[in-house]
Parts: sequence; C-alpha cells; structure tokens
Amino acid sequence: MGENLSDCIIWVVNNKYICRTTGQEFHHFSAALPSGNKKYINYLDLKNVSVGNHDYDIDGGEQSGLTICQHFYKQGSVFPGNETFDIDPEIETECRSIKPASSVGDLSEDNGWYNMTLHFYRLVMVDIMFKLKAINLQTIRHHELPDCYDFTVTITLDNRAHSGRIKITLDNDAGIQECREWHMSGTVQKNTHYMMIFDATVIFICLSSVTLCVRSVINGVQLQAEYVRFAQYRFSRKVSWADRMEFVNGWYILIIISDLLSIIGSVLKMEIQVKSLTSYDVCSIFLGTATMLVWLGVIHYLGFFEKYNLLILTLRAALPNVIRFCCCAAMIYLGYCFCGWIVLGPYHVKFRSLNVVSECLFSLINGDDMFATFSIMQQKSYLVWLFSRLYLYTFISLFIYMVLSLFIALITDTYDTIKNYQKGGFPQSELHAFVSEYKDVSPLSGCRQDENTAAVSTFCSCGQCTGSQK
Amino acid sequence: MGENLSDCIIWVVNNKYICRTTGQEFHHFSAALPSGNKKYINYLDLKNVSVGNHDYDIDGGEQSGLTICQHFYKQGSVFPGNETFDIDPEIETECRSIKPASSVGDLSEDNGWYNMTLHFYRLVMVDIMFKLKAINLQTIRHHELPDCYDFTVTITLDNRAHSGRIKITLDNDAGIQECREWHMSGTVQKNTHYMMIFDATVIFICLSSVTLCVRSVINGVQLQAEYVRFAQYRFSRKVSWADRMEFVNGWYILIIISDLLSIIGSVLKMEIQVKSLTSYDVCSIFLGTATMLVWLGVIHYLGFFEKYNLLILTLRAALPNVIRFCCCAAMIYLGYCFCGWIVLGPYHVKFRSLNVVSECLFSLINGDDMFATFSIMQQKSYLVWLFSRLYLYTFISLFIYMVLSLFIALITDTYDTIKNYQKGGFPQSELHAFVSEYKDVSPLSGCRQDENTAAVSTFCSCGQCTGSQK
Amino acid sequence: MGENLSDCIIWVVNNKYICRTTGQEFHHFSAALPSGNKKYINYLDLKNVSVGNHDYDIDGGEQSGLTICQHFYKQGSVFPGNETFDIDPEIETECRSIKPASSVGDLSEDNGWYNMTLHFYRLVMVDIMFKLKAINLQTIRHHELPDCYDFTVTITLDNRAHSGRIKITLDNDAGIQECREWHMSGTVQKNTHYMMIFDATVIFICLSSVTLCVRSVINGVQLQAEYVRFAQYRFSRKVSWADRMEFVNGWYILIIISDLLSIIGSVLKMEIQVKSLTSYDVCSIFLGTATMLVWLGVIHYLGFFEKYNLLILTLRAALPNVIRFCCCAAMIYLGYCFCGWIVLGPYHVKFRSLNVVSECLFSLINGDDMFATFSIMQQKSYLVWLFSRLYLYTFISLFIYMVLSLFIALITDTYDTIKNYQKGGFPQSELHAFVSEYKDVSPLSGCRQDENTAAVSTFCSCGQCTGSQK
Amino acid sequence: MGENLSDCIIWVVNNKYICRTTGQEFHHFSAALPSGNKKYINYLDLKNVSVGNHDYDIDGGEQSGLTICQHFYKQGSVFPGNETFDIDPEIETECRSIKPASSVGDLSEDNGWYNMTLHFYRLVMVDIMFKLKAINLQTIRHHELPDCYDFTVTITLDNRAHSGRIKITLDNDAGIQECREWHMSGTVQKNTHYMMIFDATVIFICLSSVTLCVRSVINGVQLQAEYVRFAQYRFSRKVSWADRMEFVNGWYILIIISDLLSIIGSVLKMEIQVKSLTSYDVCSIFLGTATMLVWLGVIHYLGFFEKYNLLILTLRAALPNVIRFCCCAAMIYLGYCFCGWIVLGPYHVKFRSLNVVSECLFSLINGDDMFATFSIMQQKSYLVWLFSRLYLYTFISLFIYMVLSLFIALITDTYDTIKNYQKGGFPQSELHAFVSEYKDVSPLSGCRQDENTAAVSTFCSCGQCTGSQK
Repeated sequence: MGENLSDCIIWVVNNKYICRTTGQEFHHFSAALPSGNKKYINYLDLKNVSVGNHDYDIDGGEQSGLTICQHFYKQGSVFPGNETFDIDPEIETECRSIKPASSVGDLSEDNGWYNMTLHFYRLVMVDIMFKLKAINLQTIRHHELPDCYDFTVTITLDNRAHSGRIKITLDNDAGIQECREWHMSGTVQKNTHYMMIFDATVIFICLSSVTLCVRSVINGVQLQAEYVRFAQYRFSRKVSWADRMEFVNGWYILIIISDLLSIIGSVLKMEIQVKSLTSYDVCSIFLGTATMLVWLGVIHYLGFFEKYNLLILTLRAALPNVIRFCCCAAMIYLGYCFCGWIVLGPYHVKFRSLNVVSECLFSLINGDDMFATFSIMQQKSYLVWLFSRLYLYTFISLFIYMVLSLFIALITDTYDTIKNYQKGGFPQSELHAFVSEYKDVSPLSGCRQDENTAAVSTFCSCGQCTGSQK
Repeated sequence: MGENLSDCIIWVVNNKYICRTTGQEFHHFSAALPSGNKKYINYLDLKNVSVGNHDYDIDGGEQSGLTICQHFYKQGSVFPGNETFDIDPEIETECRSIKPASSVGDLSEDNGWYNMTLHFYRLVMVDIMFKLKAINLQTIRHHELPDCYDFTVTITLDNRAHSGRIKITLDNDAGIQECREWHMSGTVQKNTHYMMIFDATVIFICLSSVTLCVRSVINGVQLQAEYVRFAQYRFSRKVSWADRMEFVNGWYILIIISDLLSIIGSVLKMEIQVKSLTSYDVCSIFLGTATMLVWLGVIHYLGFFEKYNLLILTLRAALPNVIRFCCCAAMIYLGYCFCGWIVLGPYHVKFRSLNVVSECLFSLINGDDMFATFSIMQQKSYLVWLFSRLYLYTFISLFIYMVLSLFIALITDTYDTIKNYQKGGFPQSELHAFVSEYKDVSPLSGCRQDENTAAVSTFCSCGQCTGSQK
Repeated sequence: MGENLSDCIIWVVNNKYICRTTGQEFHHFSAALPSGNKKYINYLDLKNVSVGNHDYDIDGGEQSGLTICQHFYKQGSVFPGNETFDIDPEIETECRSIKPASSVGDLSEDNGWYNMTLHFYRLVMVDIMFKLKAINLQTIRHHELPDCYDFTVTITLDNRAHSGRIKITLDNDAGIQECREWHMSGTVQKNTHYMMIFDATVIFICLSSVTLCVRSVINGVQLQAEYVRFAQYRFSRKVSWADRMEFVNGWYILIIISDLLSIIGSVLKMEIQVKSLTSYDVCSIFLGTATMLVWLGVIHYLGFFEKYNLLILTLRAALPNVIRFCCCAAMIYLGYCFCGWIVLGPYHVKFRSLNVVSECLFSLINGDDMFATFSIMQQKSYLVWLFSRLYLYTFISLFIYMVLSLFIALITDTYDTIKNYQKGGFPQSELHAFVSEYKDVSPLSGCRQDENTAAVSTFCSCGQCTGSQK
Repeated sequence: MGENLSDCIIWVVNNKYICRTTGQEFHHFSAALPSGNKKYINYLDLKNVSVGNHDYDIDGGEQSGLTICQHFYKQGSVFPGNETFDIDPEIETECRSIKPASSVGDLSEDNGWYNMTLHFYRLVMVDIMFKLKAINLQTIRHHELPDCYDFTVTITLDNRAHSGRIKITLDNDAGIQECREWHMSGTVQKNTHYMMIFDATVIFICLSSVTLCVRSVINGVQLQAEYVRFAQYRFSRKVSWADRMEFVNGWYILIIISDLLSIIGSVLKMEIQVKSLTSYDVCSIFLGTATMLVWLGVIHYLGFFEKYNLLILTLRAALPNVIRFCCCAAMIYLGYCFCGWIVLGPYHVKFRSLNVVSECLFSLINGDDMFATFSIMQQKSYLVWLFSRLYLYTFISLFIYMVLSLFIALITDTYDTIKNYQKGGFPQSELHAFVSEYKDVSPLSGCRQDENTAAVSTFCSCGQCTGSQK
C-alpha cells in the first residue's frame, strides 16, 4: 500500500501536486516544503512572474531547460510497521528535463517528465537545476555598457536524513561576461580605463613605499648586527633579544604588510575589471585588511604627541598581560564550550555546533539577550533544564564579574605604571644606557632622547596609498 | 514572445492585474510588490475604505485625480537569452490620470488609462501621484478651530536596478492651512493669541539674559586685556593662554548659546503658529538643543557645593584625555569600519553602507545583540565567513576588554588626582598666584578663595527661560 | 456622495459588513480594525465559539445584551475637498442593544440595531459593552467550592483623532462572588479558614515585632536626649546631628516599616479572601515591598561578620557620593530626555512621550539593542536624521564611557578608603571618643568596642514574619 | 441550549469539525487550538502526508490505532448565567480508538468514534495517543545497519482551567531498537566494536589516573598528619587549618572528580551503544562536566609560568571575597525577586514564576533588552505601572552602578595586593617558615622555594584522559 501511494505520477498543475493514479491531491511536497519556497517552481512561468530582464539560457541554438534529478536507493522495500526492510544502499539517479519552449498550456498533458515517479521511502535527494541569463541595464543610465549575467540555480531537496523533513537549499552562482551583440543609441564608453590607470598608480605608489620601508628595515637589521658585534667586542657581553628588536621598527613592518596586501588586492581588482576573474571575495579581503592596517598606522603619527603616546603605550604594555590572561580565560571558556555542546546540544539551538556555542557564549559575556537564551531551553528533561540554569548562571557570573573585572584591573594597573614611567623616566635598557652614554654614536642618539620608544632615526618616507581605495 | 507578454494591457479589476491580450492573470506586479503595499491602489475606493475625513483635492473647480507616470527607455529590445540588446538610454515618460469622479463601476470598461502598457523590460520607474485633503476635526472638542490639511502622496516603483525586484517608496508631504469656509455652532476661539504672548515673553527674557551675559563676558575680556597689559608692564612677562581663558566664564558662553537657540526657535515657532511655515524640524532642533543646554547649565549651580564639584571637576579634567584617547580609538574603529564595509558589505545587511557599519560596530561595543550579528552572516563563501568571525571576535575583544577598560582607568586616575588636589590644594597658575598676592585687585579676589575654579566675580543674573518650553 | 456611502445600514453577516443601501461590501471597519480584533464581534455566537463555561449575564430575569453606543458630533457636513465644513461640536449619543436570546438565524433580518447608521465623518467614538458570567470549575478537583465571575467587557473604537485610524481598546473588569445556588456531590470545603488563621498569626507576630522595635527606637531617642543634655551640661558643647543619628538604629526603622507594610497587606489579603475587596494590586504592593525589606534586613545580620561588613560599609559609604553624582548625571540625562522628546518625538516611536524617552535612554546606557534604535529612525528629514545620529552617539559615549566609569571610580575609591579604615581604625566621632573614654556609661560601652558601627547595645528581639508569605 | 450545542457529534472531515446534529460547522476546537497544531490530526493520512519512513505500530499482528480519551466530570449542569451549577467532581473517562486500517474514504461515515461526544462545559482533558514506527535509513549510506525507532506520541488538550483556552502539549517519546528482519545488499557492519574498545581504553586510562592521584592525596594527608604530630611534639603548638590544607593539592581533587565523572559517563555511553539504555541526558551531563573539569585543569599547568600565575592567584584570592559579596548582593537580589514576583506577576509575563523572575533580573543586570521589559508591562493599573517603573529603575541602577562596580573594586584591589606580594614576597605562614628553616626536611623543601603555592613535592603522573572525548 505504501508502494501504491508513493509511486503515483506527479502532476504540477497550478502549483499543486496531483497524484494521477489515485486522483487525490498529492501533498507530500506541500507538507514538507516551507510554503515560501514554492515559488521556485515557477520556472516555466518566468516571463509572467519576473519584472527583470531574465531569460532562459540558450545552449547551442536551443534553450537549455530545467533538469530534475532524483537520487534514490537502487531498490528496496521498507516496512517500518514490521520493523523489516530490504534495501540496496547503491544510489541510482534518474533525470528528466523540461524545455521552456513548451508553452504553459502543454504542461497539463503527458509530457516526458510528468511520468517521473518519486519513491519517497527510498528517495535520497532531488536536484533541480536551471540556468538563467540576464542583462544588467542599470548602467545604461550612466552611458556605460551593460554586462550580461549567467545565473546557475541549483535547488536541492535533501532527504538523506529520512526524518520526515526535507531540507531545501538554494544555491545561485552568478557569472559575469560581456554581451555578445549590442546596439545602443548615443555615446557609450566603458570607463574601466580610468579605473585601471588609478589601480596602476596605487600599485606603483605602494611598491615604492614598500621599497623604502624594506630599505629602512634592512638598515636597522644591519645596524643591529653591528651593535651586537660592537658590544661583543668592547664589553664582551651578549645583547638581549629585547634590545635587538628595538632596531626593527614595528610600524615599518605594518606598512610593508599593508602595502603588500594593497598590491595583491589591486592586481586582483584589475583582473576582475577585465573579467578574467569573478570572485570578489579574495580581492576584498586583501584590500579591506590593507585599509584597516593603514588606519592602524595612523596611530603611529599620533604617538608623536606625548599625551597621545601615554595611551598608546598603555595599550601596548598591557597587551602581553591581556593575551596571557586571555589564555587562562580561554581554558575556562573552552571548558564551558565543550560542556555546553555535549550536554545542551540536543536541546538548544544555540548549542548545536561548537562554533555556534562559542559565538553564543561570547555574545552572552558581552551582553547579548540572555533571557531569550535562558527561555529557549526545552523543558523536556528536568535534569538537563537544571543543568542549563546552573551552567548559564555560573558562566555569566564568572566571566562578567571576575574575568572582565580582571581585565579592567590589568589595564588600570598598566596605565598607572606607564604614567609613573612618564613622570619618573622609563627603566633604561642596556641599549638606551649605551646610547645616552655615547651620544655621538650616530644615527641612534638623535631621536633617542626625545622619543624614547623608537629605535630608528633615519626617517622613512613611506607613502601610504591604500587609504583612498574604497 | 517577451514582447507579447509584457506589452499586454493591464486591467486593475478588484486588485488583480489582468492582461487583456492573453486573458490570463498578469501577476508581474503581484509578485514584485510586497503584499502589504497593494492597499495604496485603493484610491478610487477612498470613500469606502477611509474612516477619516479625507477627500480628493479639488483643483480649479474639478477634482484633480491620480496620475500614473511610467518612465522607460525610449525604444529597445532586450534578449538576455542571446546576450544581445538594442536600446536607447534616453528616457521617455508617459502619463495617464484618472479622475476620481468616475464611479467605481466605470472602471471595468475601456477608460483612458486602462490602455496603459507597462514595458517591463525597459521600464525604469513608475510614479503614482495624487493629492488628498483632510480636515482635522480633533480640535473641535476643545472648541478650537480645525485646520485643513493637504497630503501630496507620491508612490514610486523604482525599477532602475532591473534586478527583478521593484523597490517601492511612499512619500507623503503634509501641508497645513486654514480652512476656507466654516461654520461651527457654539463659541469657537483660536488660543494662538495666548501662545504668541507666551512666546514673545520667552524671547524677551532670553534677550535680556543674552544681554547681561554678553556684558559679563565683555567685562571679562576687558579685564583680561588689562591684566595682560599690567603683567607685561609690571613683570615683563607674557600671560599664558590658559590664564587668559580663565577670564572668560564658559558657563556664560553656554547660556548665551542656549538663549540664542531659544530665541531663533521661538521665532520659528511663532511663524509656524501663524502658518507661514510648516517645517517643524528646524524649529524643534533649535528649541530642543536650547532645552538641553539649559539643563546642562544647571550643573553649574550644583558645582557651588564642594562635594558635587568634585565630580564635575573630574569629568571636566578627564575630558581632554578622553577625547585624546577617543582619537586613537577612532583610528582603530575607522580601520575596522572600512574593512568591514569592503569585505562583509555584500554578505551582511548590517555592513551595507559605511554609516550603518559604524552604527553596527558602535552598538556591538555597547552590548547589542551580537549573536544575531554573528548568525546573519551568509555562509556562501567559507573564506568570508571565516574572516567575519575573526573580524568580530577581535573587534569586540579589543574594544570591550582593552579600550573600555582604558576609559575606566583614565577616569579613575583623574578622580584620584582631583581628590588629592581638593585635599592638598590645586596647583596654582600664575594668575591665581598673582590674585592671592594682591587681594585687593578687585573684582577677582572675592570669589577666588572660596571657589577656586571660576574667574568671574560679578554676578550675572542671566535668566533661564527655555526650560519651560515643551 | 460622502453622505450616501457613510450613511448606509451596516449588516454584520458572517463577519462581513454589508452596506444594505448600495449592496456593496462595507469595509470601512475591516480596513480600519486590525484583523486580530474582529473576533470580539462574535458575541452572539458565544456558545459555539467558547470552550469555557461562559454565559450571558441575566439581569433581572432576562439576559442583558450587548450594547453598542456611537458618539458623534450633533450635526454637520464636512467637505475636505472644498476645505469647508459646518459642524456642531456638541456630542450626541445613540445606543442600540442586542439581546443574545435572538438566535443567530434571526440576525440576517431587520432587527432593531441593524438600522444603526455610522456617520463616519462625524463619528467620535463607538462603545461596545457587554457582560459575561463564568464559573471557575478549576477548584472542583481539589474539592473546593468554585466561585462565580462577572466579566464586564468594554470595547472602545476611538475615532477622536479623525486621522483615518480607529484606535481600539479592550477593557475587561472581572468581579468575583460566591455562586447563588450550587450542588456538588462529595464533600466540599472552603479552606479559607486556615488561610485566615495563618494571616492573623502573621499580623500578630508583626505587631509584636513592631512593638519591640518601636520600644528600642524610643529608648534610643531618650538616651540621645539625655546625652545631649549631658554634653551640654558637662562639656558645654552642642552634639552634632551625625552623632545624634547614631542613637537611632536604622535597621529598626527598616523592620518597623516592613512590619507595618506586612500588617496592612495581610489585612487587605483577609478582606480579599472574604470577598469584600477584589483589587489585588494594593495588597500585593504592600506585601511585596514588605518581603523585599525583610530580605534587605538580612544584610544586617551578615554585617556581624567583619569581612561581610567591609562590603556593606563600602556600599553605605559610597551611597551619598553616588546619589550626589546621580544628581549631576540626571541634569545631563534630563537635558537629553527633553531634547530627544522635542526633536525626535514625531519621527521615532521610542521618543513619543517623556516617560518612554527616559526608559529608552536608560536602556541604551545599560546595553539595550542600540542598532534597532538607530535604524528605526525614519529618514524623512535628513537634518533630523543627522541630529539623531549625533544625539545617540554623544549620549551613549558620554554615559557609558564617562559617567559609568566615574561610578566605578567612586566605588573603587570608597572601597579603598573603608579598607584602610578597617586596618588603621575608623575616624572617631565625638560620641565614640566619649564612649571609649567613659567605658562605664552603660549601655553603650559594651558593643562599641567590637562593633564600631552600630550604636545600640540593647538587643532587640524583633521577629521577622513576612518572609514566609508568598 | 448549552446542552444541545455542546453535545453534538463531531465529524472530522477535511480538518473541519462538523456538528452533525445542527449541521453547522463546529468550531469550538478551531477557535481554541492554535492553527499550527491542527496538523497533528492528520494521523489517518500518514502515508500521504509524510515523506519519511513512518508507519503505524503493529501490535500483535494488527495495527494499533489512535486512541482518543476524554476525561470529564461525571455528570453535571453548569449555568453561569444563573450562577448555579450541579456537578460531581468525580472524573469519568471515555475512550475511543481508530484503526488506521480503515481507509480515508470510510471516515465520512458512521464509524465507532465519530459518535464521541465532547461535553465542553464539564470536559477536563482530552488525550490523543498513538504509536508510530520508523526506520532510520540515514546510516545506510555509510554501510551501517539502520536502527528501528518507536515513537509514542501523546497530545494532551488540557481544559482543567476551564478558562476558555485549551492548553495543548505534545509529548514524543522515542525508543530505539534493532530491526527484526533486514536484508541489505553489499557488506554491512556495525562499527560499535571500535567504539567499545575506545571507551574501554578511556575507562582504563582514567582508572589509572584516579589511582595515582588518590595515592598522592593519601600521601599528602599522611604527611600532614605527621607534621601535625611533629609540630605538637617539638613546638607544642597546634597547626592551623590553612596550613593543614596546604598538604592536599586541590588540583588532584579536581582530576579525581573529573576522572570519576569520565568513568561513569563512559560506562553509560557503552550501555547506550548496546541499547540497554536510551537516555542520553545523564551520560552527557557526566561526560560534559568531566570535559569541562579537564580544561579547567589545564590552568594548573599554565600556573607554572610566573606571569600567568599572577592572574590565577588573583582570581583565587578574590574568590572568597567575591562569594562573600555575592551573599550580600543575593539578599537584595532575592528581595527584588520575591517583590517582583508578588506584585508584577499577574501583569508581566517575565514575572510569572520565581524562577523566571530570577532569570529576567539576572539578564537585566547583564544588559538584556531592558526596553522590551519596560514596555511589556500592562498598563491596566496605574499604581502597578508606577511601581514597575520604580522597581526596574532602582534595581538596575543599584546593581549595575553599585554592585558591579564593587566587583571591579574587589578584583582591582586583590590584583594590586597579589602583585605587591609577588614583588615583596608573600606573607609567610607557619608552615612555610618551618619549611624554609629546615631545608633538609625532605620532600617538601625542594619545590617550596621556587613555587610558593603548592604544598606537594612528590610529582604525580596523573594522566588526563577525557579531553579527547567529544
């Protein structure tokens, strides 16, 4: 009997699924699919439904259609009532395709794919694939040439879980290309040339900036090597790593990284403009990170004012301690993450995966909507419910009242320390002592006295170029 | 074929769009428009739908109707399937109008505008404009005369993006004016007279307050000039800017600004009352800001008590450092803003524009719903997803744990400093030293000893007038 | 014409409003009423719709029905199109009532109230009133006697604003009383007797607690008077208010207040139980506040341990400064409140009334969802939009970064002060100096040495009785 | 009349409830049930509705069906209009069952259960129970044998409150068991063997870890006993509890607890794998807590670095004070909890039960959405509305501004103390003084000097085994 009902032929008439064999409406799909997704079926009705310039893909002269593929276990019979089944785990695939050329009226009759049978009890997956083309007319108003787009749409109805719910995912891949034939009245130009020139300028400036900074860093490293040898020879002592690092200006490293990212990003951007590349992601990550580093670099210049310097120094001095403390806190945090995932995972949607647990807990510490998190907890098992309360109360109390407070204590303490240093003088390292003794050992002496924190004196004219890119 | 379907004549019968050529329902609009917006079409049915006193605008004797304008590219044919198009970027406009006089029954037949054809593939925009009039009867109950309102409603269906979604915006401009003819039983008065008198009083008081304060400030400036000359002559030394500024009482400046805002706001308010102006915005900004400044001014008087003074002094002393630190933090903040906008913009609705990114990040620091921000992130590209996690974790940690803690450190430190000053005496500036030496150099000496922070002694009787305005 | 359409007779057939005159559906109401409220109309269908034991109120033998009253301006004609109107502000009232006895089938014919005409253009208000009775069978399972309930339901459709939207409010007043006739199989008892005895016991215990505490306080006051006289006589000096207040134990005042609230609350509770009173509100406020005070009182006993005492002392010592600072902050806060109300009120739902503005700003400081507040802001006027951004950014920054930090600075400072006092001894007041000198001036001496903070030594056995009341 | 309508026979035809007697639609249920729950009724349509492998339970050869039981008061008549009733509190139960074998078509005719009468006015509860079976085919793809599931579904329509709303709860108990008969093509294996071996290994490692740690702890206790005797004998003084506790390493206790939890959890996990147990809850709580403790244990090893140690020491030193202060704060918190529950309970959904009140207040302190909490408050009674404002403002201010600040003060103070100790040396306890004097009293001496905080020297090789369990 299960056989008879599920093997019926599906008709898709007016968004309803009719089972021809028995005549009754076949609402397997209607029940399983969220109602909002039904519109994806309106493929054949594209012209009437869409207000955009969408059309079917024409593949080799004729329109390529919509392909429905069902994947199912090769053969089998499942009788849950008897707790018996006979199944072959090999997966068979059956595909049908509809050409959009056939008019809507034809669809009500015996066309090829209407005979497609969905064997729900052994169905694994249904794929619906089709291609659409579109022309982006938006740019016409600016007298630019519009581009043509390809959309490859894949709708997957995933029944692998056989849980009674079919998971639907829509995947849409867009491709961009120049249109084949076009005719536009009036003057039309593509202003990509100007963009290319701008990008090239950016790359050029960044390259020169990198060159200058690398030169400075190399000079610093050489000076450091010389100083190490000098100290070894004259005072017969080793130079500590902290002293050695003072010869390398961290800000230059920052500029170099930022410039390199800008260069790579700009090259990718040019490739996107000439349409040899379509993925904007990597390019944007490079350019975005470069822009962020450039802004961070501005802090360097703020540091030249003494009062601003105090704050920057505090942050820098507190950083090691903060990171150290973060390690300790991370242990507790990870403990809670794993514990929450294992125990509350099956009952709470915010504890489904380790990644989401971490986001949830992190948000809770920083004041996310706690009450909702408390109340979503299913009250199926009293034990787990109690555990969740204990878990959340202790976690939040521990982190908000103890850990966050300790962060404040750390920063406050560092601030006081740095402030006292500014009043009473910073503790002198060996290098600084050496420099203040031998004032004439150029080029370190000059800036050492009034700057106190940077070890280079050769001024580096590194241009900063990426800030203006959007 | 695309031609045939889109060129059909639209009938608007019972909120359905029928394509007359093919006879089938024409649901281009139904699909593209959010369902909630359909009610705007009920223009002709106004009398039945509305429960308020709305009517069509009568323009020159006859009722002005609803105007539909479509803007479309002059001519063209678009074949996305072939990737070919032939289009003229010039925009043509076609308008039809319906007179509300025509009864609802007539609409089902060939009226003028029913022949309007929407060429979706080259449609740029549809404007629907109409005017409504209303009488605000609300005031009748208080025996005041009701006003007449004009509503100019413009509904714009924006297809400029040609993306398949039509963006709808409703713009409603209201105009207010006195009704032309009216007859009301019982006594009716407009109490605008009393309001006008009140406003005039406010303006008068504020004017006198401004006069007095300006006089005090001018006196202060003159005294300062004299002191500068005296110091130059007697001690042959320059007076520092900090000392000079002590002669100008900041609170008076505050009062002057607040009073000026009140005066401008009240004048605008009077103009609104006599209906020569309709925009409430500018007026309310002036009056609102004035009110806020008046409340801030109250703190001045709290400062006369020593214990209150401690807190105010702390805030004032911490302000420069806080602003300085804000500059540093703003660099990091801006870096994150730009980076988030560039990388996450296409994937996250909260990163669409720089302005929204800034609001989103600012909210995140201050405890907004983080988990939602985390989870909205589309999981299209794994790389971007990973970047978003890194981005959010580092941003939130950096700002909540380091930057906010440093604010606390700054304030705590300033508080301690000021408290010690209060116990051990404030560091004396040159001016104060001079004053405490020459006690008889009136009028500074009197208040110097017991107040320590304000440099004026002539009492300014600046009235404060705007606090009572709503 | 406006006349004709609105004067039609409304039929309520199957939840639709039919205008009999023209025959077309009369959806004035349908459009104006939120759809969820339509169910209130199902009065005549009560038996079919309700699954509870509800029935119509029988008033003097026959069932009292549903009364519809419309209030409208006495006479008038409004022509918004011409900007003319002729209206009498006096309000007339017209009422009709339906008896539920008439069966549903009859309703489709000419019954009395169907002739009711709604003149929308001069309609002020429609009241729908009816009474329902119910029997609360819930208690039967515990073999308690069920009570009878009266529900007086008033639905108000408020058109006073004549804005085109009708505001609907539902008001439901419940009355409770004993049922008139009843018959229940099995034993039935009302266990109010036991509740009454319990309440009486509570009142008795609280009364004795009050008596004892009042006695102690009076003793303290007498002792203080004696000490003042003694100090006047012996040392010829005045006793400061701070010293005088030490004789009165604040905790006793707390207990007295708590007990008085308990007594009043319990009396009210007894009255509710004997059904001579139905408003639970006042009673619950008394009992709830009493319970809170009792819990606060427990802190007194924690203060006997030295380490706990440290924290309580800190809170107590910081309180005056915190309140002082709150005053200053309140000025800024109020300034922002008024300013936001005036400027943003018409554009943002959270700024509609002063009370809501205050709640909104208070929530924002404490980490409420800021982004939503930012984005709700209507973008009608660019000027106001800009103002709102400036307003929110400055407000949040000022309060979260400066004001909250200063709170922390205040508390931290107080904590350090108190901790140093605990180590080095509290600063001695005159009274304490006197006490430590004349150890034999009983009864103060005993507890002075080991307690340091409370001025009483006579132990007060005040019972605490309200904690156990739910 | 109430009799007639409620006693009608219910037909369930096409999800509508028809009352056969009167012929009209019987929408008692439709009104009372939330619309989303109606799908549960589709039991007989299972084959058509479900896309999963679900089937009816076959109980002893024939299919067990769906059972509907109604519980109602034995007999009675309720006339709320007259305030009279005659009822027998004894509860009668009437059950009907439908066999799924009967086809859908038959249902429209007089089958057994269609004659079931629902007496709404004395109805107490309706239970709908049925069993479903399912086969989880998901594992087939991995060539594992699928399991068979039993679902016992109970839908309860609870009318005990007789309030007019019927509360619906769905309870679904799942049982898992091996299928009776199966046939699968290809090789199939159950890899539980490997899981069992892994679990056994975990248990073995944890057992040895426990053994070693217990040995260390016992050694410590013995050493302590010896030291106590030694101190008694040599110096004739008692050893304080603090000194005694130093001999017992708290980290070992942690490891022992963690290991024991792991062992119990793993045993439970093995039982679940062999299907002798189905409740995952207890097992997951044991394993989850064990994992958390293991992560906490890692902090121990971080403590070997001095700079990390500082932070851990701070947290440990602050803990007693924090807990002490929590006690004080808890008094105020509980006071607010009880007060809010009593007063606001009937008006605010977040104050319904003590447990929810506590969660709500806790969330509010930590930055939950305050504005929503403010605005949910019903404005029925002005007095209560005012109380709620006062309540929320004072609570939030008190806790966020005073209590949280004091936490920060506590931690900051402790941090400073510990930091000074690290610089100037920790205050020596008697034990430490003794150890540093008698350096040769092995084995304590070795680690005492460089570690300062742990009292054991015998290195314990406790393996940590639970971290790898997911």
